[in-house]
Amino acid sequence: MIKLYHIGESTCSQRVRLALAEKRLDWESVLMTGSELRSTHYLALNPSGVVPTLDHDGHLIVESRIICEYLEEAFPEHSLMPARALDRQRVRRWTKSYDDSLHLAIFVLSFMCWMRERYLNMPQEGLQSCLPGLADPVKRRVSYDLLEKGWKSESVAVSLQRLVTLIAEVNLAAGENRWLVGDKYSLADIDMLIVVQRLSDLGLSELWDEHAALSVWLDRARGRASFEEAFTPWRSDDVIAANRTRAKANASHFSEVISSIGGSLAARPSPANVVA
Amino acid sequence: MIKLYHIGESTCSQRVRLALAEKRLDWESVLMTGSELRSTHYLALNPSGVVPTLDHDGHLIVESRIICEYLEEAFPEHSLMPARALDRQRVRRWTKSYDDSLHLAIFVLSFMCWMRERYLNMPQEGLQSCLPGLADPVKRRVSYDLLEKGWKSESVAVSLQRLVTLIAEVNLAAGENRWLVGDKYSLADIDMLIVVQRLSDLGLSELWDEHAALSVWLDRARGRASFEEAFTPWRSDDVIAANRTRAKANASHFSEVISSIGGSLAARPSPANVVA
Repeated sequence: MIKLYHIGESTCSQRVRLALAEKRLDWESVLMTGSELRSTHYLALNPSGVVPTLDHDGHLIVESRIICEYLEEAFPEHSLMPARALDRQRVRRWTKSYDDSLHLAIFVLSFMCWMRERYLNMPQEGLQSCLPGLADPVKRRVSYDLLEKGWKSESVAVSLQRLVTLIAEVNLAAGENRWLVGDKYSLADIDMLIVVQRLSDLGLSELWDEHAALSVWLDRARGRASFEEAFTPWRSDDVIAANRTRAKANASHFSEVISSIGGSLAARPSPANVVA
Repeated sequence: MIKLYHIGESTCSQRVRLALAEKRLDWESVLMTGSELRSTHYLALNPSGVVPTLDHDGHLIVESRIICEYLEEAFPEHSLMPARALDRQRVRRWTKSYDDSLHLAIFVLSFMCWMRERYLNMPQEGLQSCLPGLADPVKRRVSYDLLEKGWKSESVAVSLQRLVTLIAEVNLAAGENRWLVGDKYSLADIDMLIVVQRLSDLGLSELWDEHAALSVWLDRARGRASFEEAFTPWRSDDVIAANRTRAKANASHFSEVISSIGGSLAARPSPANVVA
């Protein structure tokens, strides 16, 4: 039996829920709250205190990329990896970029829009244990920096710049093939979909106003049954409405940072992700 | 044909050379110097300006973990991955820990012992282009911090703490099986071998004085033909002698940081890497 400890709006949880849906696997949901992530019970399952955690017949598997690769290998049907080694390494370039920089970039923007205020109102002693990055010194340092400096933190500009570049990279790859790596939906599409979807939830869909290929790819990815299954049951109308309100409230901050980094015109795809 | 752009003492190059040797593949060496990494010619092959880069029949593959996984899939003989999905995800936990934190930790200590002085003596305009982290803002920030604060940089203590913990994790896994994941040498052993070997080259082998299982594992890994092939041809006697001299020169700095973080007695394996 597959059991998933997850949070509705966590991108890493969305990543695994998309893979589970694509593979048409049955799974049991254990929906967590932020404070439960720091409970002794959960830390015994996942010492980093993050979601998701997958329990497959009593075997615990953590780290969303590794969970997705595990699902791919344990359940080869409805494959999410191409067959050729050369194409497989292209998928891994995308999934590695999620792990290396996109996850943090998305975290920074989400923290600013959705989390910062709550942490600012927290007593100092609670903060130390609740703040993200329990086992990740970089994330912890960035969180403190965002608490202190807010929109003026260098991390905000660095993150937005990374995501603006990413949009151009996805657009380029989406213009070349039906999916990001060839003509088959893969783990690369899953990872970039959750990033782009989060930008959309943050009110940043303007970033791809002039990137037609990305828009077509995005509509196509959202049109799959997996998107409905991985997103809709885990977000209430309240959450969607709140996201919309917060997106409006933060729009001027985003505009300011985007113009400070030279706007979307600054976006040039790095060849790194698009080399065949 | 396989061609590898690499540097003798780069851990990421050692990682790939070990995989190539284990798989008994023939390859052509393109040995790079630090300054060649920033040449227009090389940046066209590898926009991040780092080694290694693998050229397989004209296809360029970058990022050492991805290169190793590519070699594993393109040349399945002499496999470096276990067969069972559960074991494969255990290997990926180790290789991910190299990517996520060990690579940076090892970089920090190597920078302090082997690189800092050279960069300090460099004119400001050269520094900007030569300093590590051309496409990696975290590495770049850490490099500047190490230049400025030296051994007092927080990164040094954080890195040593991470590596002290790792030693305990490797020791625990090495005590349970012949290799880090079961009874078969895998990409996990390769990654941890290059980390532990670097600690040894930095004069830090005391860290495992009381970790017998790690020592047995290390001797066993060093006893394989792949170790000889991946290390010996790429390090001259001069390099080994210089490493030894620098290790002695830095010993007191290391002792000071180690005692500030509570010494090797503070090392407790995080369950993260040793969960079955």
